[in-house]
Amino acid sequence: MEKSEFFAKMSEVGKALDSPERLRILDSLSQAARSVEDLSMVLELPVRTVSHHLQKLKASGFVSFEKQGRHSIYSVSCEGVIRFLSNLKNLSVELLPDMKLHMKELEGTRAVYRCPDNKNIDDMIKSGEITLIDVRNREEYTSRHLPGAVSAPIDEIDNFISGFDGRGIVLAYCSDVFCVLADEAVTEIRKAGYTAFRLEDSVTERIAAVR
Amino acid sequence: MEKSEFFAKMSEVGKALDSPERLRILDSLSQAARSVEDLSMVLELPVRTVSHHLQKLKASGFVSFEKQGRHSIYSVSCEGVIRFLSNLKNLSVELLPDMKLHMKELEGTRAVYRCPDNKNIDDMIKSGEITLIDVRNREEYTSRHLPGAVSAPIDEIDNFISGFDGRGIVLAYCSDVFCVLADEAVTEIRKAGYTAFRLEDSVTERIAAVR
Repeated sequence: MEKSEFFAKMSEVGKALDSPERLRILDSLSQAARSVEDLSMVLELPVRTVSHHLQKLKASGFVSFEKQGRHSIYSVSCEGVIRFLSNLKNLSVELLPDMKLHMKELEGTRAVYRCPDNKNIDDMIKSGEITLIDVRNREEYTSRHLPGAVSAPIDEIDNFISGFDGRGIVLAYCSDVFCVLADEAVTEIRKAGYTAFRLEDSVTERIAAVR
Repeated sequence: MEKSEFFAKMSEVGKALDSPERLRILDSLSQAARSVEDLSMVLELPVRTVSHHLQKLKASGFVSFEKQGRHSIYSVSCEGVIRFLSNLKNLSVELLPDMKLHMKELEGTRAVYRCPDNKNIDDMIKSGEITLIDVRNREEYTSRHLPGAVSAPIDEIDNFISGFDGRGIVLAYCSDVFCVLADEAVTEIRKAGYTAFRLEDSVTERIAAVR
């Protein structure tokens, strides 16, 4: 294989990334395995469109599927895909001035938690000083979540607040640096008079590494 | 900005990666800044084609240029681009079965150096136990190279061999995991009766980090 052939092959992988819909599908599958129908509902795209993009993603190796009864359940083919997508997000913010500006604004409004130097978040969760909540939807939580986190989907954040004992700090996380669900949760919890922060900008890779 | 808009923006970045020619241009600029004319010569592509792809790469932020007299000298816009390209190479090998197979075959023939546990390559270069050679072309070497390396372009490897004092081990490096120039140099140096190895699979990111 000549070096130029390698680049021809690489461009096949690159081709999978030139559609916003395919990127959204990959992003969604980075959180949890899903059927075509689930993806269609979550992303508000026609089943036929999702199906078409999944074929392309399968051809370039990004996703694989397994049959469960009548349904095909799709997932990213390896952790490398999740890391790569995360990398592409960061690079896009770095390269595109309007994205950089928007992220700067977002960061300016974000209440990201800073753990005191002499403490450790995992220990603080165990001791009850911190309540860690996962505000993604329940199937994403069930698929994988950070150790010690409880599920508090953003749509049901009021349930979490009314059941909260008010002890210590609430740290919320969602998926990635673009996602504002954790920020919305922080706002709601603060309105109710409690102390809340966003855990950190992006936890996608940390969640992907959970076994 | 809605989350879906982020993905639209990201796909602009993705679009830059769906052409083998653009990937080759980025790869070449990862090694050294170059004029359109240089790129055209190195990549054996018409100036017009190179120019067209550079415009696309500029639009999505991958490359920038500065005027030097009559020439525009292009370079990658930040180190993140080099890291990303390296990432895309690794992902392509992971996702595409025929690339994976080919890389496995390549690795099987490659004589990659294994440094003894109690030694350090940098110290061995200083003490003369190792001669480190950069077999890329001279302008790439001049742009940046690993500390302690001498320039021995593959086209002039005979000159290096005839001048070599025969002491110790020769370690050769080129650019990336796909590149076989270092392997070719190792073969030639061994034919001449000396001990030679490839330094490691890919040094692109290490070179990019040299200040």
